Amino acid sequence: MGRIIARRRVTRITVGSEPRRREDVLAVEEPLEIRVGGRSLAVTMRSPGAPGEDFDLAAGFLVSEGVIRHGDDFAAARYCAGATAEGLNTYNVLDVTLAPGVPAPDPSLERSFYTTSSCGLCGKASIDAVRTLSHFDVGTDDLRLDPALLVRFPERLREQQAVFEKTGGLHAAALFDGRTGELLVLREDVGRHNAVDKVVGWAVKEGRLPLRGTVLMVSGRASFELTQKASMAGIPMLAAVSAPSSLAAELATELGMTLVGFLRGDSMVAYAGAERLEPHAAEIPQGASA
Amino acid sequence: MGRIIARRRVTRITVGSEPRRREDVLAVEEPLEIRVGGRSLAVTMRSPGAPGEDFDLAAGFLVSEGVIRHGDDFAAARYCAGATAEGLNTYNVLDVTLAPGVPAPDPSLERSFYTTSSCGLCGKASIDAVRTLSHFDVGTDDLRLDPALLVRFPERLREQQAVFEKTGGLHAAALFDGRTGELLVLREDVGRHNAVDKVVGWAVKEGRLPLRGTVLMVSGRASFELTQKASMAGIPMLAAVSAPSSLAAELATELGMTLVGFLRGDSMVAYAGAERLEPHAAEIPQGASA
Repeated sequence: MGRIIARRRVTRITVGSEPRRREDVLAVEEPLEIRVGGRSLAVTMRSPGAPGEDFDLAAGFLVSEGVIRHGDDFAAARYCAGATAEGLNTYNVLDVTLAPGVPAPDPSLERSFYTTSSCGLCGKASIDAVRTLSHFDVGTDDLRLDPALLVRFPERLREQQAVFEKTGGLHAAALFDGRTGELLVLREDVGRHNAVDKVVGWAVKEGRLPLRGTVLMVSGRASFELTQKASMAGIPMLAAVSAPSSLAAELATELGMTLVGFLRGDSMVAYAGAERLEPHAAEIPQGASA
Repeated sequence: MGRIIARRRVTRITVGSEPRRREDVLAVEEPLEIRVGGRSLAVTMRSPGAPGEDFDLAAGFLVSEGVIRHGDDFAAARYCAGATAEGLNTYNVLDVTLAPGVPAPDPSLERSFYTTSSCGLCGKASIDAVRTLSHFDVGTDDLRLDPALLVRFPERLREQQAVFEKTGGLHAAALFDGRTGELLVLREDVGRHNAVDKVVGWAVKEGRLPLRGTVLMVSGRASFELTQKASMAGIPMLAAVSAPSSLAAELATELGMTLVGFLRGDSMVAYAGAERLEPHAAEIPQGASA
């Protein structure tokens, strides 16, 4: 079951106590490229899960897209050997063979399928390819942040959330100045990735890229995609109210980004870059006091 | 601010009380097609939000994808007139002009961008196009379900969730028999859409499509995309622990699907198809009793 959960050394930080290193479990996130008849159709960031789940995922996806409607339409599926340059099978590329007589998906639909911005990973065994994409090096950012300041961010995010209280249907992303704790901008959206894009787009308009010394806070979980978006904007710290995925933690480690999850009450878990969380890192300004 | 929240007549149902009709507010969800230099690059389901948010979304998206890195790279953006067959401006198609000298996105990346399966909607003003995609008519499904049975589903979903308790990082989707209340299958994934695809794929394998008389239950919110996936598998009822989006409610109404949100404790809100929720619709089997 190693592809369902991943174990990782993390740092649990509670304000006023010594940080504690411990082992934590994360949900595994990996890209799955779905091919039909050898032709790439979609890539999705998924939990590999138990044996057979990828086959179910591919079959269900093809139903969703109107390609198949019965089990008989789905003749076979196999993981592609040689998905990597070294010819290894990553178990992240699945080729579906449709039954004779079942029309292949309309090629014009190819672009229309559910994919994520992390598709650059298609068929790749590692996340190295992603690092080269960023114009900015968040690893060298000298941000240091007092955990006592960081634990105030969720409350400030909730205070500012305009629409969520009414509908319960929106995710929020907010950008904080890591030195002063000032909330710079908050955006809400039905899609978490959109909320983050809106925050980064605001910063583009304001001429603030790269966003050195800032903290991106999201209302839900931290995925690979959100970690990648933060790095592309030069944000050195991503903090989430809930859990990160395994690939988010791996990417943050590779990039030298600080990734914080379970930021609740007076505690948090650092999955990468814990060295930036330093008690009394800066004088906490009066304006940011509780 | 009509494009941030939408008002809708809903039915609030509490077990043992009379259903109450009332007005509710939902988060607006609409597709945004992002074009660069007239060329379609990506479609995302987003909250239109306040004026200017789409521009920020497009700019942030282009940063995420490495196309731009400064405000100066982004010369202009405008909504496309004539996005519909009738030549109307839907404010859902945005064309970005890059500054001179900024390379256009690599065409090979087109397929790699974040899009959803609802991209069939690109530039379309209505959701009519989606209805034609489904092989199955969920509107004629004669499922009737006692709300007293439905309110037990969230607890049964939580009982069965294997991984969430450990990592906090997974969404769950489960399929129930609407007549007996039996939990047929549960799948978890870092992506909600994947969890639903895995459930549907299981049903394909079992030769159960169309899934007449079943209820799909999801751990989080109900989006347009999940509603569409349910319809493609012939599922007549979608129930979510949290809020649906405006477009999920609209699509469910169009399809004759029952959409339930905020299924918590002994109550729920029906956003579409409330007629299927009928006290004493069937004898509640002993095996499903609390």
